[in-house]
Amino acid sequence: MAARGGIDLGGTKIQAVVVDAASSPVGSARGPTPESGGPRAVTAALAETLSEAAGKAGIETSELAGVGVGSPGEVDAGSGTVAQARNLPDWKAAFPLARELGDLVGTEVRIGNDVQVATDAEFALGAGKPYRSLLGVFWGTGVGGGIVLDGSPWLGRGAAGEIGHMVVKIGGARCTCGRRGCVEAYAGRGAMELTARRRHKRGKKTELFAIMERRGRTRLTSGVWAQALADGDKMATKLIDRAVEALGAGIASAVNLLDIEAVVIGGGLGVRFGTEYVERIRVAMMPHVFVSERPPPVLLAGLGDLGGAIGAAMLVDAGERVRARRRTAAVS
Amino acid sequence: MAARGGIDLGGTKIQAVVVDAASSPVGSARGPTPESGGPRAVTAALAETLSEAAGKAGIETSELAGVGVGSPGEVDAGSGTVAQARNLPDWKAAFPLARELGDLVGTEVRIGNDVQVATDAEFALGAGKPYRSLLGVFWGTGVGGGIVLDGSPWLGRGAAGEIGHMVVKIGGARCTCGRRGCVEAYAGRGAMELTARRRHKRGKKTELFAIMERRGRTRLTSGVWAQALADGDKMATKLIDRAVEALGAGIASAVNLLDIEAVVIGGGLGVRFGTEYVERIRVAMMPHVFVSERPPPVLLAGLGDLGGAIGAAMLVDAGERVRARRRTAAVS
Repeated sequence: MAARGGIDLGGTKIQAVVVDAASSPVGSARGPTPESGGPRAVTAALAETLSEAAGKAGIETSELAGVGVGSPGEVDAGSGTVAQARNLPDWKAAFPLARELGDLVGTEVRIGNDVQVATDAEFALGAGKPYRSLLGVFWGTGVGGGIVLDGSPWLGRGAAGEIGHMVVKIGGARCTCGRRGCVEAYAGRGAMELTARRRHKRGKKTELFAIMERRGRTRLTSGVWAQALADGDKMATKLIDRAVEALGAGIASAVNLLDIEAVVIGGGLGVRFGTEYVERIRVAMMPHVFVSERPPPVLLAGLGDLGGAIGAAMLVDAGERVRARRRTAAVS
Repeated sequence: MAARGGIDLGGTKIQAVVVDAASSPVGSARGPTPESGGPRAVTAALAETLSEAAGKAGIETSELAGVGVGSPGEVDAGSGTVAQARNLPDWKAAFPLARELGDLVGTEVRIGNDVQVATDAEFALGAGKPYRSLLGVFWGTGVGGGIVLDGSPWLGRGAAGEIGHMVVKIGGARCTCGRRGCVEAYAGRGAMELTARRRHKRGKKTELFAIMERRGRTRLTSGVWAQALADGDKMATKLIDRAVEALGAGIASAVNLLDIEAVVIGGGLGVRFGTEYVERIRVAMMPHVFVSERPPPVLLAGLGDLGGAIGAAMLVDAGERVRARRRTAAVS
């Protein structure tokens, strides 16, 4: 099989890869997600980042066997459109992302749900390989989830996996989705930034925004949070502690409901913070796990930062092939 | 097929049925669950209640093609044992319920998880008939849940469906399971009774215990709660409001995670309170549902009080048959 492209479209950054037949990256590139300009600006940035990754692999994007995009929002894989992408600029109405991006890169584009393709990649190639059922938790701008049950993705009526909007505190903090007490209201990078800005404005001390400016950023990226934690910043520490607590409770709720074999933690913050925080999340989960004598392992995403993009590339034909291989292996 | 027996073993009551080949009840009986005497006393009560139901159907229990029991606790269907049944008296170690009850009733006994068999019955014969994926919520002494995904029960590693122990309030009320903030800590009849007793002891007014005594009860049964609500008792109203809120949030969390097609509410309190409260639970769920434009319907259990017992009877051979019929119907 020829090389394929995969793009992970996140709220802060765009990660593109070009992979070979074994889904191993042979070129990758990363760029910031545009903060304005709507779907067209985002689509142009996707094409540019993919082009850079292809350049590193020594080919043109038009030579790729196809390109997959893992997108937030309401993804209609059939029609190739994305709607209601809350963490992207002015992206409400359905936008024909597959067609528009296909025109720019000169090859066929398939789209899928960002967290589901990342979960599929972890299941097929990453930390989820030894298991048949899996909860993927992607801790970044939002908190997304993907589910694999008995070897197959569980999508429900198309919107399953919203672990970020499970309720962990009735009447609790306002979430960026408008509801109250969601996991994401405490753990989403976007929600944490809003809380930090509000508290900072009220005169509470924090180095978060000074670090942000020193790094030439306009948002509290994962790197900014990591630096503030390393510096012992009190507000950052408190907000991240609260995030870990909410993630632990939400994951425990999902474990109690589904009794899955393993939990994999990925996403911008998850991957940046690494094993130490995965362990903290596991510890926060434990007091709420109903069958406490056999909790599922909580694992760091094996594909790191690239899982979403690799999973997106798997949308191009290989996805079903890899899963079929897993199924055969499990049966034999 | 000859008549089959089914028994729903609850924390307060034992419901037995004898059903015909179409799983329609031809005899039923109900008795209180013993509050002491351990597994042997409970087993004797199960045999007695089944015998009464068989008598009404005009046969001996030994003439039944088999008997199914839906049990709380850790059910091992293979070995026929039940362990750790918290809401039953002194039932911790694994007890060979299938064998012991089989000896008393003179026919083969199969056991299954109480809420899963009730969910299977609602799926095959009750309110869940039109749907392929389903969440069953059983609101009684505890709050149990059963899951059907794409036409098949989802059991996880054997303990899936614990919606009662999803966390709806981090650091919240102490649950009878020892954890904090579980749905059941607010909505379980057992937990509500403990809270009411504590408040009553501290001098708070309520008619709950006077009603209980007038009815010759030792526990706040569903009927006692219903009477207190009808009388406008303030403590009862407040506790039930809180229960409805917790159920709404927990169900919404499950809906956001699984995106199932329908929710069915059963259990002692659910069936006793009926459609008015099912609607209240739906209203409490709505503010937390992520894809709010197409929430799943929230339905009252179609088999009422008898669902658990009918589902238990389905464990005797017919279970797989009925599900196979549903699968065939869905395909054709």
